[in-house]
Amino acid sequence: MLSTTPRTRLGREKQRGSTDRNDLYQVLDSGLFCHLGVVTDGHPMVVPTGYGRIGETLYLHGSTGAKSLRAGDGTEVCVTVTHVDGIVLARSIFNHSVNYRSAIIYGQARLVTDEQERLDALRALSEQLAPGQWDYARPPSRKELAATAVLALSLAEASVKIRRGAPQDEPEDYALPVWAGVLPLVTSWGEPVPDPVLPEGIDAPVHIVERE
Amino acid sequence: MLSTTPRTRLGREKQRGSTDRNDLYQVLDSGLFCHLGVVTDGHPMVVPTGYGRIGETLYLHGSTGAKSLRAGDGTEVCVTVTHVDGIVLARSIFNHSVNYRSAIIYGQARLVTDEQERLDALRALSEQLAPGQWDYARPPSRKELAATAVLALSLAEASVKIRRGAPQDEPEDYALPVWAGVLPLVTSWGEPVPDPVLPEGIDAPVHIVERE
Repeated sequence: MLSTTPRTRLGREKQRGSTDRNDLYQVLDSGLFCHLGVVTDGHPMVVPTGYGRIGETLYLHGSTGAKSLRAGDGTEVCVTVTHVDGIVLARSIFNHSVNYRSAIIYGQARLVTDEQERLDALRALSEQLAPGQWDYARPPSRKELAATAVLALSLAEASVKIRRGAPQDEPEDYALPVWAGVLPLVTSWGEPVPDPVLPEGIDAPVHIVERE
Repeated sequence: MLSTTPRTRLGREKQRGSTDRNDLYQVLDSGLFCHLGVVTDGHPMVVPTGYGRIGETLYLHGSTGAKSLRAGDGTEVCVTVTHVDGIVLARSIFNHSVNYRSAIIYGQARLVTDEQERLDALRALSEQLAPGQWDYARPPSRKELAATAVLALSLAEASVKIRRGAPQDEPEDYALPVWAGVLPLVTSWGEPVPDPVLPEGIDAPVHIVERE
């Protein structure tokens, strides 16, 4: 169960809220990147960045010099992951909508210093973006690890919203001669494009070619 | 030209920054939704929402009761639009990356009260999400308009980052027998799904069926 706090309580469209932790995991695990919100000098700052999940913890990473991560360490952050699944075309402009799945996580980010947790987190981050690559490509060197900051965020305070299905029109609008329905938005992987300087004879590995 | 301010100056990966306003317009005009960042009670809050652009102004809308919009009116906001175009698979884990186009806009949101500007903004918002629908579906009623808050955000303070092309590996890693390249992420429209209660004989309009 997802517990409700003043921040995660849904003010509107409560029927879209989910309190099932599995929905939270599903939204997070099927995403490629999140939007990280921090407050810098009193102003909001929202940047796209990668993430990974291990159990009840979300991990973020970046250069030790990144502005967004400097602001995030030890301070309140908000991480949002959004999937848009389709455009909902209603009979009225007002009831147009979007089919989506989104997760919003609030909490205080913690800079990860334990070496094993850092490695596990970086592996989770890498596998989230490019499954199979951690065991395939060259592992991080000591110098590369030192240049990477890893932040941890508990999933304790999270909300999930999901909208699926047909438009919800005003009762009197159903008689209008207007088409209504959903235009699905489909995301898929294209054919792998080799680095132009890749030597001949090195094929793309199966986990890339057959990625789902 | 995009001017540089302390907030939009790129701290890292400066080569990915663009100062071409046309890049800003392209990123915004080809997006479906943004992530709106606001500060509420000192905490960041990031929510996905729709937007539209008219010239140098970005418009957002929502219910007059939405928490995020209440916090946004007259206060500093950050709007981020991100397109992920592919996963960059390098020879080392450390140099894995993402091909993306993103725009970040900072500024003070203004609640739009002029009726004509509100209508123009709502039209832009509608056309951004579902081009052609504004002139096809039932227009907003007076009551629906009254329930809708519209915020305007100047594009004066914006930054754009774009990464394209092959991985950038460490010089010594190019000799590794590791495949490297880009796995493109492709977004496309599926077949329109009619509302189950749609009467027979109402076909989806051309602007839906042939949406690019």
